[in-house]
Amino acid sequence: LKRRTVGIFGVGAIGGSIALRARRGGATVIGFDRDAAALAQARRLGAIDAVTEAEEASRDVDILFTAAHLEPTLKEIERLQIAPGTRANLIVDVASVKLPVVRAAARLRNFVATHPIAGTEQSGAGAARADLFEDRPWVYVRSGDEELDERARGFIESMGAVPLEMAADEHDRAVALTSHLPQVVASCYATILRAADDDAKRLAGPVARELLRIAGMSFDMWRDILRANAANIEPHLRCLAAELQTAAAALARDDVESLASLFTR
Amino acid sequence: LKRRTVGIFGVGAIGGSIALRARRGGATVIGFDRDAAALAQARRLGAIDAVTEAEEASRDVDILFTAAHLEPTLKEIERLQIAPGTRANLIVDVASVKLPVVRAAARLRNFVATHPIAGTEQSGAGAARADLFEDRPWVYVRSGDEELDERARGFIESMGAVPLEMAADEHDRAVALTSHLPQVVASCYATILRAADDDAKRLAGPVARELLRIAGMSFDMWRDILRANAANIEPHLRCLAAELQTAAAALARDDVESLASLFTR
Repeated sequence: LKRRTVGIFGVGAIGGSIALRARRGGATVIGFDRDAAALAQARRLGAIDAVTEAEEASRDVDILFTAAHLEPTLKEIERLQIAPGTRANLIVDVASVKLPVVRAAARLRNFVATHPIAGTEQSGAGAARADLFEDRPWVYVRSGDEELDERARGFIESMGAVPLEMAADEHDRAVALTSHLPQVVASCYATILRAADDDAKRLAGPVARELLRIAGMSFDMWRDILRANAANIEPHLRCLAAELQTAAAALARDDVESLASLFTR
Repeated sequence: LKRRTVGIFGVGAIGGSIALRARRGGATVIGFDRDAAALAQARRLGAIDAVTEAEEASRDVDILFTAAHLEPTLKEIERLQIAPGTRANLIVDVASVKLPVVRAAARLRNFVATHPIAGTEQSGAGAARADLFEDRPWVYVRSGDEELDERARGFIESMGAVPLEMAADEHDRAVALTSHLPQVVASCYATILRAADDDAKRLAGPVARELLRIAGMSFDMWRDILRANAANIEPHLRCLAAELQTAAAALARDDVESLASLFTR
């Protein structure tokens, strides 16, 4: 990344972490965020070198990142397609659902759809960490241009992450199970726990607290994800509900032994 | 705890943590475990001063702890009722369900039913830590003898924990929600995830990994808990299943907005 210029659109927890890591690798980082306070914070935290306008952030950079939520990412892709004006030879997004992104970016040159699998339940540049992606998988969707894909893999590796090639629909089915289902479960569980009395809440053990922590995430982010990936999430929700009903029935008929298989490591 | 002798029946993660903390406070700790390897390990780790027979561990002690799973705890309580032979002026258990314990110990002198709310998904003395209970709630069920309860509170505080008085049935309803429901959810979720392909598993984020970690707990321990508290757990399972079905239906009709209330902090 030495002597490269990286433009980052959206300097929250993910964008900020990319910025910190890129700077550590010797890059100059230009940041933009619709939220002026977020932008100022990223500057204060030393995540970005220069603060600029959206157009400028995309024009004079070698690598361009759109690190916003899904809907702003789709809008930014559209803007770049209408008014390219960037010399970047690698444009990357990090949204949590890939099929809508790949479809939206069909005519965008040098674009690779990606998704770093790194947990940040906190949002904002304050939650950014240069080592957020260290040894974590970072999914990318093959662009069809092997040279471009190689640049994307190189960038992912420069972030400390492990490139993992997946098809967009395959990725969306997988995260429905590994990320979106747990999020809805946590949110439903938190809703039930909130209705309980205070003494019950004081007894929350590590699992309950982890579920509550996740349930506190922003609906602004999750609205887009749930809508975009509804078709993949819905069957998993029904499947888990059926498993819980089966377990409830086993408890009701004092047949705890039939639950043993659930506890297989 | 200075110059007191504490007997601990069951030197796993919880019993071992009590032992470490009691020794740090100046007590002499005598340990017993049906599992000879566990006993040897606790000795090796310095959690206990003396290793002994069950009868001996209960005879010459000031405070007696049964820190085993639910069924062995009930058996030990029965043994102590039949053949008291202990000079302990405080006998305490730490099982996860309290109503069966309180009922079994109805005629046991100096007994207080308790439950430390401290997470140890790992088992065995190797997982013991002197600070496991630090600032965590530790439930006790009033015995009816105020002086005895005061001794129990004193011991709980000497463990670094915060005494929390609850009725046995109230406790069992609360942990059904805060501990037992999450455990079954985690186990059902893990069952679904295990059936997925390997790439999906690699995408497991922090929530999924936390659920998998919990799901790996021993059925030997959970069998007793689920059976003893089935009546309290079953309605919560049905309630959560219904919430998941409602969420699934909302996704199916593209009504993500109706899920906003699930994300209230």
